[in-house]
Amino acid sequence: MTDAVGRPTDRFGGPGARSPLIAALTDYGIGPYAALLQASARYPAAVGIDWLDLDHGVALGDVRAGALTLRRTLPHLPPCVCVGVVDPGVGTARRAVALRTATGHVLVGPDNGLLQPAARRLGGVTELVDLGGSPLRIHGPARTFDGRDLFGPVAGALAAGTPLSDVGVEVEPASLMVLALPAPRRTVEGIDATVLEVDHFGTLVLALDEQLTGLGPLPPLGASGRVRSALGGGEAFVLGQTFADAPHGGLVLFVDSDGALALARRDGSAAALLHSGPADALTLAFGGDDADDDGPLVA
Amino acid sequence: MTDAVGRPTDRFGGPGARSPLIAALTDYGIGPYAALLQASARYPAAVGIDWLDLDHGVALGDVRAGALTLRRTLPHLPPCVCVGVVDPGVGTARRAVALRTATGHVLVGPDNGLLQPAARRLGGVTELVDLGGSPLRIHGPARTFDGRDLFGPVAGALAAGTPLSDVGVEVEPASLMVLALPAPRRTVEGIDATVLEVDHFGTLVLALDEQLTGLGPLPPLGASGRVRSALGGGEAFVLGQTFADAPHGGLVLFVDSDGALALARRDGSAAALLHSGPADALTLAFGGDDADDDGPLVA
Amino acid sequence: MTDAVGRPTDRFGGPGARSPLIAALTDYGIGPYAALLQASARYPAAVGIDWLDLDHGVALGDVRAGALTLRRTLPHLPPCVCVGVVDPGVGTARRAVALRTATGHVLVGPDNGLLQPAARRLGGVTELVDLGGSPLRIHGPARTFDGRDLFGPVAGALAAGTPLSDVGVEVEPASLMVLALPAPRRTVEGIDATVLEVDHFGTLVLALDEQLTGLGPLPPLGASGRVRSALGGGEAFVLGQTFADAPHGGLVLFVDSDGALALARRDGSAAALLHSGPADALTLAFGGDDADDDGPLVA
Repeated sequence: MTDAVGRPTDRFGGPGARSPLIAALTDYGIGPYAALLQASARYPAAVGIDWLDLDHGVALGDVRAGALTLRRTLPHLPPCVCVGVVDPGVGTARRAVALRTATGHVLVGPDNGLLQPAARRLGGVTELVDLGGSPLRIHGPARTFDGRDLFGPVAGALAAGTPLSDVGVEVEPASLMVLALPAPRRTVEGIDATVLEVDHFGTLVLALDEQLTGLGPLPPLGASGRVRSALGGGEAFVLGQTFADAPHGGLVLFVDSDGALALARRDGSAAALLHSGPADALTLAFGGDDADDDGPLVA
Repeated sequence: MTDAVGRPTDRFGGPGARSPLIAALTDYGIGPYAALLQASARYPAAVGIDWLDLDHGVALGDVRAGALTLRRTLPHLPPCVCVGVVDPGVGTARRAVALRTATGHVLVGPDNGLLQPAARRLGGVTELVDLGGSPLRIHGPARTFDGRDLFGPVAGALAAGTPLSDVGVEVEPASLMVLALPAPRRTVEGIDATVLEVDHFGTLVLALDEQLTGLGPLPPLGASGRVRSALGGGEAFVLGQTFADAPHGGLVLFVDSDGALALARRDGSAAALLHSGPADALTLAFGGDDADDDGPLVA
Repeated sequence: MTDAVGRPTDRFGGPGARSPLIAALTDYGIGPYAALLQASARYPAAVGIDWLDLDHGVALGDVRAGALTLRRTLPHLPPCVCVGVVDPGVGTARRAVALRTATGHVLVGPDNGLLQPAARRLGGVTELVDLGGSPLRIHGPARTFDGRDLFGPVAGALAAGTPLSDVGVEVEPASLMVLALPAPRRTVEGIDATVLEVDHFGTLVLALDEQLTGLGPLPPLGASGRVRSALGGGEAFVLGQTFADAPHGGLVLFVDSDGALALARRDGSAAALLHSGPADALTLAFGGDDADDDGPLVA
């Protein structure tokens, strides 16, 4: 049996061999809000619960960025509980949910698209509960901190073994809100793709996977091309496997550690070079007039 | 029996059910200094000690900001040891102390006001010891890192079960330095209140609680008003419960997750809109000429 | 028996008394990459492994900064596994290694100088293995994330008790790449020293230790002097033990918590005052025309 990234599931050891694990992703920043979320999940339980901070630096209210990070990271974790809170609609009528995936991961958070791309990559939703009237909600003075008052306690109870049906009301798995993600498009000029994320190194992760999402296969390694952003210009890139496949300061297009195509700049930031960030469009073309004479062109 | 925020204390499980816990707050930033504090507390012990980073992003030397974050967070933790280090006077004659509160929390840090507001909220100080000649101090080459050389080892020993009287010399609990906090004032124009904190979302937390600290009760939900900062102008706000009670870009005055009044901007930063930050004064007035026509005025 | 900073090793308790510990330092930033490194190390093991984030804020690709932080922090940790990843050459022919030191610490990372200064301070390398063909490497789509795909799994296996010889091929300990560090120089004007690091407080840590690296002993405490940076000027300093030994806004030269000489500014940033940062040169002179009239000069 293999996991969501194609590796044997037993590399994570058997169930019960460790403390249960909760992973967390929020837009709270590293600091007291994230700490209170953690405390609300871990300390009501009488037994030890392990904790992993996936990311608290999601841009404020950026549900898509949070969703992509969950999708990118959760397949590398053993079956665990993940609490995700990027929740600009806190306190409104948006649903709060918990769900189980085919891989046995349990996800807790707002039903605003945040959890869905990860759930899909983890084999899809097998159980979904609405936390609206959850008996685990802590009723405090405010309605603005569901991380501490609802999602944390629910995640803690689930990690300690409480069944999903005890923390909320079962609803149709297909009712989970779907997050729309941009698809690449082939044009006369090349391939239009949207920037999904910029990582810590200034690498641009594209909404474009290795198989070009049905647009055809990639040219062989070493192929050259040009990339153009909305601000015009055209920068050369080489199709490679690692940063060092580009000349110093040059761009490399590569399959990143999550299987997506990404543009990195050797010893620099591709985001800065191309003045591009999340949601910006880039046009990629292989071959053509190549300023980079490191290798033969592949049209 | 209820805890400092009015909930049953047994929600944290019984004593001894988990590893002992140390929570930490400093102005060290996330990085090697905070890691060395943690190591100095956890690894001399022969048994496992759990660790929670409350906040290491306190503004450099800002004792008041650290004190407010401790007061805001510790009531949500089970009885534990908390080490707080915002200590511009390190190496001088300022006292170093450890104390126990009525709730059973143990606080360790400099006696410069940092620990006192939290201790007061946790039922007051029942034991206080001066760490000046503590046998646990590590004598290294420097006198500038009491987090690693004194507070960490003391916190670790206390978490492992060492009595307070073994880590320092007992002194009068009332001798703990009190931190002065600004009080609100009613004027002919409205209520003058000081900004205590700006959170990660740009929300301004005011030195003003739900009961207006004796200035009278709040108008009903939905009431409108105006807030003026030192830079003049006057921005409309609505008294609500959550961010979505304001129109897009509008201000909401609400009781925050700690019971304090706070001003937030829907889909934006109240701090940026009002050009205000910690220690700035704001004047709030309910009723008057309201630019927001979402609801009736309440004078 | 004493540890690398001269304290009894038994202050860390005996072996086996706690969960095994992995400490981590990277230039990944706090977020998903650091979380995936952690997950790759901790969760394949069937037993609990403790984790300490030393620092993920190393400047991108700054091997020297990472090496200095490892050297500064590891002597304060019990024998443990440390994974260090500042690796601009990932995916190239640079070696990946794991090593054991005389103190029993195990270090894992690229062989680019990152690990060597810490290993030297920890008594030197007693075993070294090349991870090039390690059976623990995870073969994924990319060659750009050795933290997750190689160093993490290796660190986890070593923490769980796997012998070094099972994770790589034994090579000559002396073949570990040495990191060159700048040495101080005595000139007619004083002592030229290079800034090694700027810490969170703006303190400049110098490549100059208490014994002046053979240049002679320090003047007595209270001695005054001047420091000049490449941008000219000359700022007075006092030789002290803590920040408060300088007047407000003044500079103090002191032996820092790692035994190095450092320049701090009381209630401010020495780095900002002197417009200096890592790799900049400073010239220090004791005595001379002192603008600070707090005490007698010592020439």
